[in-house]
Amino acid sequence: MTAGQTDHVDALRALLGEKGLVAGGDLSAYETGARYDHGRAAFVMRPATTAELSDAVAYCVRHGIAVIPQSGNTGLVSGSTPDDTGSQAVLSLERMTTVYDIDPVNRTVRAGAGWRLSALNERLDAHGLFFPIDLGADPMLGGMIATNTGGSRFLRYGDVRSNTLGLTTVLADTAGTVLDLGSGLRKDNTGIDWKQLFIGSCGALGVVTECVLKLEPLPQQSATTLLVPSSADAVPALLVAMERACGATLSAFEGMSGNAIRAAFAHVPSLRNPFENGNVPEFVILAELTRSNTAREGEQPLDAMLEEVLAEIWENGEDLLADALMGPPQEIWALRHALSDGVKNAGRLIAFDLAFRRGDVMKFLSHMKAELAVAFPMLSVCDFGHLGDGGVHFNLVTPRDHAALAEPGFETSVRDLVYSVAVERFDGSFSAEHGIGRKNQIYYDRFTPEVIRDLAARLKKAISPAPLGAADFSNTITK
Amino acid sequence: MTAGQTDHVDALRALLGEKGLVAGGDLSAYETGARYDHGRAAFVMRPATTAELSDAVAYCVRHGIAVIPQSGNTGLVSGSTPDDTGSQAVLSLERMTTVYDIDPVNRTVRAGAGWRLSALNERLDAHGLFFPIDLGADPMLGGMIATNTGGSRFLRYGDVRSNTLGLTTVLADTAGTVLDLGSGLRKDNTGIDWKQLFIGSCGALGVVTECVLKLEPLPQQSATTLLVPSSADAVPALLVAMERACGATLSAFEGMSGNAIRAAFAHVPSLRNPFENGNVPEFVILAELTRSNTAREGEQPLDAMLEEVLAEIWENGEDLLADALMGPPQEIWALRHALSDGVKNAGRLIAFDLAFRRGDVMKFLSHMKAELAVAFPMLSVCDFGHLGDGGVHFNLVTPRDHAALAEPGFETSVRDLVYSVAVERFDGSFSAEHGIGRKNQIYYDRFTPEVIRDLAARLKKAISPAPLGAADFSNTITK
Repeated sequence: MTAGQTDHVDALRALLGEKGLVAGGDLSAYETGARYDHGRAAFVMRPATTAELSDAVAYCVRHGIAVIPQSGNTGLVSGSTPDDTGSQAVLSLERMTTVYDIDPVNRTVRAGAGWRLSALNERLDAHGLFFPIDLGADPMLGGMIATNTGGSRFLRYGDVRSNTLGLTTVLADTAGTVLDLGSGLRKDNTGIDWKQLFIGSCGALGVVTECVLKLEPLPQQSATTLLVPSSADAVPALLVAMERACGATLSAFEGMSGNAIRAAFAHVPSLRNPFENGNVPEFVILAELTRSNTAREGEQPLDAMLEEVLAEIWENGEDLLADALMGPPQEIWALRHALSDGVKNAGRLIAFDLAFRRGDVMKFLSHMKAELAVAFPMLSVCDFGHLGDGGVHFNLVTPRDHAALAEPGFETSVRDLVYSVAVERFDGSFSAEHGIGRKNQIYYDRFTPEVIRDLAARLKKAISPAPLGAADFSNTITK
Repeated sequence: MTAGQTDHVDALRALLGEKGLVAGGDLSAYETGARYDHGRAAFVMRPATTAELSDAVAYCVRHGIAVIPQSGNTGLVSGSTPDDTGSQAVLSLERMTTVYDIDPVNRTVRAGAGWRLSALNERLDAHGLFFPIDLGADPMLGGMIATNTGGSRFLRYGDVRSNTLGLTTVLADTAGTVLDLGSGLRKDNTGIDWKQLFIGSCGALGVVTECVLKLEPLPQQSATTLLVPSSADAVPALLVAMERACGATLSAFEGMSGNAIRAAFAHVPSLRNPFENGNVPEFVILAELTRSNTAREGEQPLDAMLEEVLAEIWENGEDLLADALMGPPQEIWALRHALSDGVKNAGRLIAFDLAFRRGDVMKFLSHMKAELAVAFPMLSVCDFGHLGDGGVHFNLVTPRDHAALAEPGFETSVRDLVYSVAVERFDGSFSAEHGIGRKNQIYYDRFTPEVIRDLAARLKKAISPAPLGAADFSNTITK
């Protein structure tokens, strides 16, 4: 720490209390992201209330200290950790957990931004309700709002944006201005809907300190299947057929490549291989039906419904399905949830979080695999994702001993190729649900039209002018 | 028209063509709103493409001509008609209908902002899809986006915002800057989500020229009932019980006051009165279940499901239901849709479009009726609305021959009382789904916190600086 930093630490400790300021010791927990990332923090602020957080931001803005809001720190784009200069202060939300106020009739909860998703859902369980964003990681609410996460039940419940009915945020100005935006109304069209600006903008416009979230009744019945499509071309038709037949009962429609499944089996030997003779198909779909009611006497059980729907699809003459395996939901989801770690352990990973119009997902996969086989033949494509909403976790694995990994610029060349095909050829998104951080800032600058980058800079200056967070919308970066 | 205006008309006719400019004749179709409203237009611009619309806006901004975008002109807050100065130009979207591009797999349509909701849904019908915003009026898409309408199936499908995946808009600047924002991706978190700023902001920030809308499979089965709650207190518990039992099958849960129902019967004698001995209860709920699939053999029919669910509620000992009437959906919805005209014809109407947290709806109604009975005993309360999302069309009817109607300030006094109770005591919204126009601008100025009004003014200046539309977020109005 520099001498100037020591003064700031003393002043901020006076504002935030002993527990509210960490400096001088081991800060690595706040400097290291979930994957890849490592920086250096000047110090760490840990306010426990919106008022304290406002004071801390105001102090930093007045003294020109760059602030990096940090929530659960489970992100994958270096959006919540400091850079390596040692000059940025981390603003941790981990103590913002005192607010918890459930309204069962409104199906909403007001909660501090430091609540972990799992802890919130545990507490909500007693009311038979949950916040229906289903993720592999266990983030805090603040970061979920900042990145507008989606997850595996997006098809049924939507993203964080469509489940956020209010939030409190602190602007990056010399006053640490606090905005209270919405308090749980589903309908309120009385001017600009300000909360929308702070959802998905990666903490660059304000720090979310509290939120009002829409809750859903917990599923009480479910049925799950693994579908093997007859071809890649059959996948979109299968999705449409399942949606028509199942309506909102369909709660997941997830794609899994054979490579990703094999990587999961290799990494987690306890997983049962449900495929005939253990032969993993090239592409498999996890489809799930759920209902929020306990089974009624006259109601067709979900398993029977699923079987009837699949029989109809099987018999309709379109030749969409090659196979369908029924199985215990826990077992099938265990496979789905093992994909991420399996792929990570299969070699050196270059990961992408892409999204397309739904009809373009399989077209992109087919095109991209062919192009990569020529340009980078050492890469194994281990994709999986959310077919129902066009999301693809496009993962490329290089054997750890491959010489290409030693070549400078190898990863950048791969990224440049994939992103340019995804964005420029298929009109897709280069960050479906991970937001913008230092890791993909270059692609924001490259793929965002000049007019939009210019507007973003003007907007930022007009409402929340000081630097905030790892994403930079100031349009001052040279491409 | 003044001499200066004649020059402008000639210049704009050169930009927009003969069909694109209407001036000098009878402009009343563009000067008169759906209810109450009448102003005077300098002239009317009718561009047919985004490029023409951009040229028209740029011309008007450069020459200081105030522009009022006008869509279907079905709004109720004077948001789409000119004021009475004769100096404002109307920018009609009615010719913006050339774009229509459906993507059945993505379940989206790109459409020009001038499409009427009914015309769009007629064309989508061939694909078994619809845009699921269910309204009494028949607006155009541009205005639906500008006001973020909700409607009667909000509970199942959400509002316009949650069903808009992209839009094109023209800013109020000297270039008529065109922004292309989103093209049908469900997931895209690559910075600020700009389209959100133009949804619900009443045309003040930009004119929406095209949009990409998320579509839903058309319902293929439905069952409808009229529920008579045992008391006002039972209503929230009934909503929660129906949601738990029916999940997303529940597509409407609408409240209707006895006064509104009686007004509908009086106005439309052909409506059948389904209540015992014709005695209309004080409060009735329309509940609807729908499914998007054609009935399958093993599936419990929706009528049977509804009866089983109601029997469970009846028998659970909570005493929530006094009565439940099953009936043909068309007949029940005919009553629901007759409420608005019925109320309008019952006397002189003062109408409010309010929203509350769901548990507060019945509390507000009870409190407000008691307070009005004392302060304004001549008023009859004819409320109806959307219990599932907290929306209340709160209607007050005065006998047409009542002396109060001649008193200056009568309507204003009523409005001030209702709004202050709704907003200040019940933390509700003074415009749930109608947006802001000249008619309720005063309440935006009164109820919006200074810090938000100031931010809105800075935002407007930074990104879309010229006056646009009837709503004024410039924060220069004296309260």
